Amino acid sequence: MAHALSLAGRGLGRVWPNPAVGCVLVRDGRIVGRGRTADGGRPHAERVALDMAGDAARGGTAYVTLEPCAHHGQTPPCADALIDAGVARVVVAHEDPDPRVAGGGVARLRAARIDVTVGCLEGQARAIQAGFLSRVTRGRPWLTLKLALTLDGRIATASGESRWITGPEARRRVHAERAAHDAVLVGAGTARADDPDLTVRGLGDVGPGRVRIVLSRHLRLPRDSRLFQSAGDPPVWLIHAGADAGDVGAWEDAGARVIEGRSLGTQVDLAHAFEALGQAGLTRVYCEGGGTLAAALMTADLVDELQVFSAGKLIGAEGQPGMGALGLARLSEARAFDLAEVSALGGDIFHRWIRRV
Amino acid sequence: MAHALSLAGRGLGRVWPNPAVGCVLVRDGRIVGRGRTADGGRPHAERVALDMAGDAARGGTAYVTLEPCAHHGQTPPCADALIDAGVARVVVAHEDPDPRVAGGGVARLRAARIDVTVGCLEGQARAIQAGFLSRVTRGRPWLTLKLALTLDGRIATASGESRWITGPEARRRVHAERAAHDAVLVGAGTARADDPDLTVRGLGDVGPGRVRIVLSRHLRLPRDSRLFQSAGDPPVWLIHAGADAGDVGAWEDAGARVIEGRSLGTQVDLAHAFEALGQAGLTRVYCEGGGTLAAALMTADLVDELQVFSAGKLIGAEGQPGMGALGLARLSEARAFDLAEVSALGGDIFHRWIRRV
Repeated sequence: MAHALSLAGRGLGRVWPNPAVGCVLVRDGRIVGRGRTADGGRPHAERVALDMAGDAARGGTAYVTLEPCAHHGQTPPCADALIDAGVARVVVAHEDPDPRVAGGGVARLRAARIDVTVGCLEGQARAIQAGFLSRVTRGRPWLTLKLALTLDGRIATASGESRWITGPEARRRVHAERAAHDAVLVGAGTARADDPDLTVRGLGDVGPGRVRIVLSRHLRLPRDSRLFQSAGDPPVWLIHAGADAGDVGAWEDAGARVIEGRSLGTQVDLAHAFEALGQAGLTRVYCEGGGTLAAALMTADLVDELQVFSAGKLIGAEGQPGMGALGLARLSEARAFDLAEVSALGGDIFHRWIRRV
Repeated sequence: MAHALSLAGRGLGRVWPNPAVGCVLVRDGRIVGRGRTADGGRPHAERVALDMAGDAARGGTAYVTLEPCAHHGQTPPCADALIDAGVARVVVAHEDPDPRVAGGGVARLRAARIDVTVGCLEGQARAIQAGFLSRVTRGRPWLTLKLALTLDGRIATASGESRWITGPEARRRVHAERAAHDAVLVGAGTARADDPDLTVRGLGDVGPGRVRIVLSRHLRLPRDSRLFQSAGDPPVWLIHAGADAGDVGAWEDAGARVIEGRSLGTQVDLAHAFEALGQAGLTRVYCEGGGTLAAALMTADLVDELQVFSAGKLIGAEGQPGMGALGLARLSEARAFDLAEVSALGGDIFHRWIRRV
């Protein structure tokens, strides 16, 4: 199962709207097939592994990181494929909460007299599936907020100078994290100030391009920007709440997908926007700022994971804060996060925190 | 030598104005004596180890973390003691830059036909001796700045609520760090706002009380404070620059030592104040805030080490910053620190950085 989980993890960012699943087929103590959900979500991991194993799967054990599907979608159900292949035993990390599956896959296998075990390395599997589980159970993608900060929590000097706070190893890790998410998100301020292209670079072939999302209430974004120039590929999605038809048309003509959101006060309604992203199939979104959007996402309680890159520098209180105003009246109102990982990374440190539920 | 260094480290915070030295005596592959500089700085490590060894030291090897002293101070020179004990070989981590020693100890040993090796584990020894070396070569103590911060660099909410940002393990580590320094330092703002007592608690016997220092230009500190009530023991030192004689007298009557500093603009001249602390014998000072003093110390370029406790919370931009304004015009002016240590600590993380020289 550990091997299947490692295969599953390699699919993150490449398989949405489907879950990143891994499957290992073992017979007589030997691995006869393995696979992960393919880029774009099909074929599923079980199909890939069975195709590799051929007849060798008969009488073997399948280790699958998520309950095999039981519904006829664009591919026949994996539960049936495992039955047809003559697998004797299936070990599943956890059940699929997707209402089209929800125990149906396990039931179908058991009805075919296959020995099924559920719950193997479930915690690790759920951590890898957090994005898919979020989309299915909460109707919105998992949101990881990246903060690249000085030790005193700044992202730029008072005059806006921010290149570079962190070192090359940290920036490389950011590209790996972009690749492990379905989409990268920034606010309009960052899009205007940094003219980012938000692509994954320097990691070789990482599969289909990650979606690049900009939240901009009025869609007032420069058309001489890198995002506009390359809006067709990788995909650019824009979420607004009351833009001029001219701006909408220009971006659509450039190849972008324009999503009309709802306003909430003077901002885009973020909870609504994330529901739209979930409906569009996204399971994992990586937000890279800036401080205003970060604070708005925190206030809307949408941040599931924090990834902090801390550099051994101090900018001081005039510097631009990585987190805008949160309007807390008391310290006890501060949203708490649990440490998931901490390590040195080049000259910086990297720490990852998961929202306490 | 590694064992001698571990003994030396136990003396930190207890032996000023002397260096925290460790000594291990080995004969025939067996440890026959060991010691560290005693609390208050005397007897020296070599004397302690020789007294333990007695005649067994004859013909043995002494591992000492700092060059043995060669001058007659309040105790006879350790070089002579090693010679008199008949030690055959002395391994020294590094030479003592104190002008009263400065190679004289090694020369004296060699003149007595003792085999002397210098430079064993020198880097580790210098790290432990950083405070003493700073006092001797720069005329001021090593300054460690502690920051207990939220992930966004805040030390309190807008209304000043700060208990507790970090968890009990982090707070316990702070007490251990206080104990490993000669003195704890805060600014007048923190003294007024928090009414701290700045003592070492919860660690059993840690030797003589660490000096508690408050920097306050006008010495306008409340007399109903814990520091005033207990000013005699452990010692309270106050550094001012133009206080009323009445305030000075009241604090002196309460048992505090009042040091008249110099003003620089509207503040106490910090470089001058640290020279005074060095002259008073301090080798290691632990500064615990607040944000204004932290920024002033950074601006005066007096901070040698940063100890950051980061809690998995976010307060937002209205919160009080852990680092005040630094007046940087460019990012390249930001003082850089090199990572020395990073680890999880309870639910928080602890990271330590050393000023890049």
